[in-house]
Formats: sequence, C-alpha cells, structure tokens
Amino acid sequence: MSAIDELLAGNRRYAERFEDGGLPGAPALALAVVACMDARLDTHRLLGIREGDAHVIRNAGGVVTDDAIRSLTISQRLLGTRSVMLIHHTDCGMMGFRDDELKEAIARETGIRPPFAMEAFTDLEGDVRQSMARIRASPFLPHTEDVRGFVYDCGTGRLREVPAA
Amino acid sequence: MSAIDELLAGNRRYAERFEDGGLPGAPALALAVVACMDARLDTHRLLGIREGDAHVIRNAGGVVTDDAIRSLTISQRLLGTRSVMLIHHTDCGMMGFRDDELKEAIARETGIRPPFAMEAFTDLEGDVRQSMARIRASPFLPHTEDVRGFVYDCGTGRLREVPAA
Repeated sequence: MSAIDELLAGNRRYAERFEDGGLPGAPALALAVVACMDARLDTHRLLGIREGDAHVIRNAGGVVTDDAIRSLTISQRLLGTRSVMLIHHTDCGMMGFRDDELKEAIARETGIRPPFAMEAFTDLEGDVRQSMARIRASPFLPHTEDVRGFVYDCGTGRLREVPAA
Repeated sequence: MSAIDELLAGNRRYAERFEDGGLPGAPALALAVVACMDARLDTHRLLGIREGDAHVIRNAGGVVTDDAIRSLTISQRLLGTRSVMLIHHTDCGMMGFRDDELKEAIARETGIRPPFAMEAFTDLEGDVRQSMARIRASPFLPHTEDVRGFVYDCGTGRLREVPAA
C-alpha cells in the first residue's frame, strides 16, 4: 500500500465519525497561524485547536514570503481574521544549508538556477523577527496590531515567544 | 484572554503530555501534503497522520505557487520526500472572487495593486489538475511520479480523487 493510499484509509475512518459538516469558512478565532511545514509540527494538536478555529499557512521555514502575504491578504480581507501567530521551530532544516549552495547544486544538476529565494536562515529568532517585520511592512494587510512570533521546541513540545525587535 | 493567549494555554496542555521529543526531521512516510489554509481542514486528523509522518504545506487555495515549489524542492532534495498529495476543498473562499476585482479593491484603498496573482479560481477540479501539472512541469523537483490530487468535502469529511488530465 502506498503512503497516499494509507492516508486515504485514514480519511475513511475520519469521515465515518465526521460531525462538523455545518462549519463556516471564516475562522472562529479570527486568527491565522503561519508555521513551518516540518513533519514534527501537528499545528492543531500543539495549539489545542479544532476544525473551524483558524487558518493555517505552512511552508518551508514558516517564513513570511510573498505567498504567505497573499494568503494573509485573503484571510484578513475576505475571511475576517485579525491576529497572526508565527511559528518557527528548533532543529529546522532551513538552518542546515545556504541559499547559494542549494541553488548552485540544483543549477549543476538541472541547468537552471531557481529564480526564487530559498529563504534559508542561520539566526532562528532573527528570522521570526524578520517575518513579523514583513507582515507589519506589508501595504496589503489591514490588521498588523496583533502579530506575535514563537519558536516551537521539538524536544519539549513547548512554544517560546520571540519579542519583536 | 486573546485568541493567541488561548492557544498558548492549549500548548501548555500539549507540552505536559508530550512524548515525541526524539523524532527526526525527515518525514516517516516520505510524503508532502499541499492543502488549503481553510479553517475546516485539520490536515492531520482528516488524514489520520501523526507528528513525524509528513510535511504539510498550506496556503490560500492549496494552490501550487512558486512558494509551494520552493517548499517541495527543500522537502524532496533535503528531507527525502517522494510523494505529493494535493488537497483542495468544497466551498472554498478562492471561488468567491476574481483576482482583478480583489486587486482593484486593494489598489483603491492602498494606492498599490498587489504585484502577485491572488490565484482565485472558478473550476475546483480544474485547479487541482493545474496544481498537479505545475508540479510535473517544475524543473526543480526530482520526484514527480507519485503526485495525486483530491477534493475534500467540507460537508462529509471525505476526500475524492481528481484524475490527472
């Protein structure tokens, strides 16, 4: 059985017990989470939230990229969210390489250097602060008052707040 | 208590029961999920997966954007994933507006037209197929054999597969 088929079996079990058919699209907590894609983060369990509570935006690093700004723009302007919670984490793969090094390796193999930043970083808290700053600097987001950044500790399951610069 | 403070209380309860401190960063199922940020989707519960199993990439629409390609590039090249599971869903907010209309409204308010596509769509299955095609067309992803797309039904909790074009 392939990994995807295994997950489809998991979905059939979920659907059998499913009772949340009437939830609206707008998040009940008026909140968007931006977190790393890392496999160790089950964002719902680690925050104690349920279906219907919050938008969840995830990418490599949990970095506020243009695409995260696109998602937050839609989240705030069309679906009523007002708060943003950013989550990076310890032992992140984004700290194990440099943009140039990965882009050069890909260029050697494919003949094409990726035309986008990889968003690797060396300073974990610094990158959380940069992500908060990118949200506050965006001209497209109407709500930037309640933006808070955190580091999730993969060893303890605990969130630690990163003060804004 | 603010929404974020509520989630921090949820995290303290999670950390008290936490036992997964030794998990590696590479996903156990060698799989990446790309799903919509929609509040109704708890990707872990709806797929029956656990901490450590899969990368989860999420944005407005679950669309394969350049940033999703960036995340998948890192997922496949540095963390060993080989399969991609795409999840769009019924009643998606991305079907309730058009790119031009939202960008003009933002330009009227802020004086700046967003320089990125909003990625709104009208054809749900068509957008899943386009996202699969974008993955297969990317020169940066080494593994594009096992890419499958699904629509999650917010009314029943069930996934339905979208055949590739």
